Amino acid sequence: MPTLNDIWCAAERIAPFAHKTPVLTSRSLNADSGAELYFKCENFQRIGAFKFRGACNAVFALSESDAARGVATHSSGNHAAALALAGALRGIAATVVMPESTVRVKVDSVRRLGAKIVFCADNHTARIDALNRVVAQTGATFIHPFENEQVMAGQGTAALELIREVGRIDVFIAPISGGGLLAGNAVAVSGMCPGAEIIGAEPEGADDAARSFAADRPLKNAAVNTISDGLRADIGQLNFDILRRCSVRILTVNDAETIAALRIVMERLKIVIEPSCATVLAAILKYKHHFAGRRVGVLLSGGNVDFETLRFS
Amino acid sequence: MPTLNDIWCAAERIAPFAHKTPVLTSRSLNADSGAELYFKCENFQRIGAFKFRGACNAVFALSESDAARGVATHSSGNHAAALALAGALRGIAATVVMPESTVRVKVDSVRRLGAKIVFCADNHTARIDALNRVVAQTGATFIHPFENEQVMAGQGTAALELIREVGRIDVFIAPISGGGLLAGNAVAVSGMCPGAEIIGAEPEGADDAARSFAADRPLKNAAVNTISDGLRADIGQLNFDILRRCSVRILTVNDAETIAALRIVMERLKIVIEPSCATVLAAILKYKHHFAGRRVGVLLSGGNVDFETLRFS
Repeated sequence: MPTLNDIWCAAERIAPFAHKTPVLTSRSLNADSGAELYFKCENFQRIGAFKFRGACNAVFALSESDAARGVATHSSGNHAAALALAGALRGIAATVVMPESTVRVKVDSVRRLGAKIVFCADNHTARIDALNRVVAQTGATFIHPFENEQVMAGQGTAALELIREVGRIDVFIAPISGGGLLAGNAVAVSGMCPGAEIIGAEPEGADDAARSFAADRPLKNAAVNTISDGLRADIGQLNFDILRRCSVRILTVNDAETIAALRIVMERLKIVIEPSCATVLAAILKYKHHFAGRRVGVLLSGGNVDFETLRFS
Repeated sequence: MPTLNDIWCAAERIAPFAHKTPVLTSRSLNADSGAELYFKCENFQRIGAFKFRGACNAVFALSESDAARGVATHSSGNHAAALALAGALRGIAATVVMPESTVRVKVDSVRRLGAKIVFCADNHTARIDALNRVVAQTGATFIHPFENEQVMAGQGTAALELIREVGRIDVFIAPISGGGLLAGNAVAVSGMCPGAEIIGAEPEGADDAARSFAADRPLKNAAVNTISDGLRADIGQLNFDILRRCSVRILTVNDAETIAALRIVMERLKIVIEPSCATVLAAILKYKHHFAGRRVGVLLSGGNVDFETLRFS
């Protein structure tokens, strides 16, 4: 389990490479919610999402000899681009295993960042097999998208920055998928602001985390049905353990609530976020009584949205 | 004609009320354009557009006795909301003349800000008649949307802030409609960075400014056909005179180029801007040779976009 000191180390390690993202506030959203909302805008992070913090920390934490053999991962999303960029910045090889069904624009962006791409069939076993082959052949270090302590520590630098900028918060909310973002930031928030509440926002159509904490053991999604394409992973065991220790609370929202929140963010804050990211404001507006009167750190996780398909009406 | 000192005074006057908006940069847009682009983000200004700077300066520059009789204007756009907010902040009455065809959402937002609305028929004469009646009845001061020196000086604070933050620029580009934004900022830029080039971006479907400077006298739009709904006004005489003295250059773009640029801004900068505002990046990408190798101040004028109707494909 990463410690607050690990997060301070991560912050120092990634400082030359990562953006210190802005914190936005909105009079009208404060009025609507009754809370004081501090939006930490990771949509402005490099590659357009918080994922760069974790990948960058993991890559630069490697010893020279490990780094020389490169890094590898499986991902079709923001972690793939994040690891590709982190590898390029350290000047080492990065290999990303991607399902053959991955959309062209994501493949191209990872390739442009200099990573090698290995395609696999669109199932869990094929992905793990392909990754194991890469690791066996190259000696690369596997950087898991979320079940990795250095990745978690890197993600936790977002809340650390937020609290350094705005001061003590009463509540911290971030989207939850595999749980790396929330776990890393939970460690930072619990350490910096003892007693602050940690909340995960989750789509109803991929509510493994809500069910996991209700059952007190990590469960998987049987079927997944949500517009929040970044929140489809099952929660990791390591992340579950950390979040349980932090007494995390999960709030679920449906896709209509997410889309409405996405539009509100674009209209009021004038920033672009992706649906997965809008779940946090959707949860705040749905469960207003829970947030009213409190200082809330709101992690806006990313802004990689597909305008070809996005519709508000 | 406002002077650089008028703009310094305006900056001091509006400082307690206006946002100091951020300046964004993008590695990928610098690579694509070959220029160093500094985006001054007035989409983050209060009421979502630069217009608040000018209206706020004009309202707070009034004497106590003039202010006591209130302010009035005609506008269906951002100037209406800007004057309403500025009036509310000074605690004086603001009256806005709007055509009956104005969309409900704009009427509501101006009303919410506390302004009185007077509707008129949808033509120039009716608008001026209605405004004159308001002024005659109340003694209110007419704050013209752009042909007003205090309004221009207020708008010019955007470039002043930009240059204070990023240092000397070689080129400044902003959208042009009535010319208040560009004229005020031209005074700031010419004063702070002698020899810098001033450029106005204009839609082909409302190209009165391009034709005016070619003819060396202010001309009107016969018909207007553009998605850039904030750029449909004819250039003002006062604004024309100032801009001619600053040797302004006008670059025109078509709506397809504007929409492409709008999408690029949303995808790369992760911010929301309105079509009128996207004309500047459209011009930079269309006339790359003109900007390559230069430090360019880019005024992003506003972010009040209608997501109900916006389509990229």
